[in-house]
Amino acid sequence: MSEVHRTDPGSSHEVVVVGGGIGGLGTALALTREGRSVRLLERADSFGEVGAGLQLGPNATRILREWGLLDKVRAAGVEPRRLVFRDALTDEVLTELDLGQEFQERYGAPYVVLHRSDLHSILLEACREAGVLLETGRTVTGVENTEDTAYTQLADGTVLESDVVVAADGLRSTLRGQIVDDEPVGSGYVAYRGTVPLAEGDPVPDDVVAWVGPGCHFVRYALRQGDMLNLVAVFRSPAFDRGESEWGGPDELDAAFGDCSDTVRSALAHLWRDRWWPMADREPASEWVKGRTVLTGDAAHPMLQYLAQGACQALEDAHTLAELSTGQEWAKALASFAERRIPRTARVQTTARMWGDIWHVDGVARVMRNELFRTRDRSDYKYTDWLYAP
Amino acid sequence: MSEVHRTDPGSSHEVVVVGGGIGGLGTALALTREGRSVRLLERADSFGEVGAGLQLGPNATRILREWGLLDKVRAAGVEPRRLVFRDALTDEVLTELDLGQEFQERYGAPYVVLHRSDLHSILLEACREAGVLLETGRTVTGVENTEDTAYTQLADGTVLESDVVVAADGLRSTLRGQIVDDEPVGSGYVAYRGTVPLAEGDPVPDDVVAWVGPGCHFVRYALRQGDMLNLVAVFRSPAFDRGESEWGGPDELDAAFGDCSDTVRSALAHLWRDRWWPMADREPASEWVKGRTVLTGDAAHPMLQYLAQGACQALEDAHTLAELSTGQEWAKALASFAERRIPRTARVQTTARMWGDIWHVDGVARVMRNELFRTRDRSDYKYTDWLYAP
Repeated sequence: MSEVHRTDPGSSHEVVVVGGGIGGLGTALALTREGRSVRLLERADSFGEVGAGLQLGPNATRILREWGLLDKVRAAGVEPRRLVFRDALTDEVLTELDLGQEFQERYGAPYVVLHRSDLHSILLEACREAGVLLETGRTVTGVENTEDTAYTQLADGTVLESDVVVAADGLRSTLRGQIVDDEPVGSGYVAYRGTVPLAEGDPVPDDVVAWVGPGCHFVRYALRQGDMLNLVAVFRSPAFDRGESEWGGPDELDAAFGDCSDTVRSALAHLWRDRWWPMADREPASEWVKGRTVLTGDAAHPMLQYLAQGACQALEDAHTLAELSTGQEWAKALASFAERRIPRTARVQTTARMWGDIWHVDGVARVMRNELFRTRDRSDYKYTDWLYAP
Repeated sequence: MSEVHRTDPGSSHEVVVVGGGIGGLGTALALTREGRSVRLLERADSFGEVGAGLQLGPNATRILREWGLLDKVRAAGVEPRRLVFRDALTDEVLTELDLGQEFQERYGAPYVVLHRSDLHSILLEACREAGVLLETGRTVTGVENTEDTAYTQLADGTVLESDVVVAADGLRSTLRGQIVDDEPVGSGYVAYRGTVPLAEGDPVPDDVVAWVGPGCHFVRYALRQGDMLNLVAVFRSPAFDRGESEWGGPDELDAAFGDCSDTVRSALAHLWRDRWWPMADREPASEWVKGRTVLTGDAAHPMLQYLAQGACQALEDAHTLAELSTGQEWAKALASFAERRIPRTARVQTTARMWGDIWHVDGVARVMRNELFRTRDRSDYKYTDWLYAP
């Protein structure tokens, strides 16, 4: 170490978490619950989440219950009764996944949808109560590792010493570059979001509906106890396919859904057109650990959203890291964490890509997709056990 | 009529059939069995069939039984026990169609495979016995129609007068052009065929196996009571995709199956490499009748071979035309024939195209195709009832 500034000489934490999103907060909370002292650094000037709805499968809600947060999550969210797939061109119901009693008994927890900012607030409050040191306006530029110590370097020259640094800094992670030499992979698809307030007496959909269509899809579900609808429209950008660097703008939105049903097309009016999310992931990585730095969440395994597992897998990371660090030295804990989590999250990443491809097929592949969905044995859980089962 | 030569002034036939393939012979036989006098004109100097194996679904064998020919067909052929679909890359069995007792009871007749030339010989012999006037070396150049008479014009200047002309002159029909303004549609796929003699003691496959792969497939079944194997290899021609006019040559054969299983690739050695069949069909036509001329078989509805229905639909045509012409004047019979047969054969044509597309998919569509095939309810006949049921 050339220069070590210590702006907080009195504050010695075992763990520094870089990134105050859902994954970072979850990790900070889980480790604190296991008795670790945690300092969390968020680059932005305040904590918060952009975006709209978020889906939590039972693999995530089981963890939130263990952390004592499931009641709050349920109160803030909605428990849909069904996940429904419809053809975006015809509105035909292709298949449904019943999220009711049998599903919840099988997987030991409910399926909940809620606003991203509500989940973020619940985790933030829990971190505060648990005693996590939460700091905003803290930009991390890198980490230097020795055999048993990590030195987190901040943009203002500060260096923080800890046993471990958890990189939870998302898809465009600053710290990932120290461990994995790769770049995000643009999918060519872009997401538009929006919410629609529901008035008193409006019917509240009790399902999550995904309309799947050629090169596009549309998702709708109720949020905040039915006070609003969450909308997501995703389409493949012609500009991306032409090789242009700017792609997915609102000029492409309406045409992308031009062949879709009236239901789908009329919903586009409610989408925000001043903000959109070009969707990207990365190839699964084989290394997440360097010295005392470990990648988690989107920094470790950014994924396309088709399985709605981005936040869920980040919470799984948090839970597993805390569990494996208990009563074990950090070097072994980090190695075990990577060994256990890399295959699992690689499968979710690659399956999410394929699942998106399945949603977006056209022609004879669409005919087969629809037939496969229609004839699916709804009492068979083979497509969800690997993801949701304890 | 400008000039009418009559080389056969004493021979007056109600029906002239143009084309001595399976469809033409079947039509001549069926009409003769209903008491019509039929003269059949074949362009070649002798009757015969090129090609190798031919599959007859129960919709065709029911008709052959009615004509008293099923026993001969069975004796010449093989009754496979199963139709098996395998993945051409992995050899995995994807699904099977049981052709046994339940199938035969449901559809009232067996599934038979035999050599094309054997079926042709059986029909030719039956036509002779029934009294069809069979002529070879007779090239038809056109037909002129009046309200109640057709004048068939031959290349040698002869004109034959009849009540009706049945055009059974195949995919590249001379007479179709008088009724439908279209051209064959090249599929970009080409078929190679071959037979392998089986020695005494060699295992005789009791199934029809179709290995389906990306841009290629391979079919194998036993013929002639198990004396030989019939092989068909079909692939999409890269030269076709490059827009070249010559495509599908043997230089493209091996590479097309390069990713296939050892079983499939090793079978290619048995294929004839001096003859191949570029595969084509036409769009379904809405008119088959002009005056007293009617299209049948491939002249009416040429189809890709994926449902193995080319000969079967020609036999259905023959049977239906004979049935509708009984006790009815020709004008009404021809109109009824077209009305009944056009929708049916259009469905077979378009379904055959789609079925071929399903066989040849790659990527995520292949994953879905395989899953759809694997999970197919084998007690459900919905995919075959429309085609095979009486």
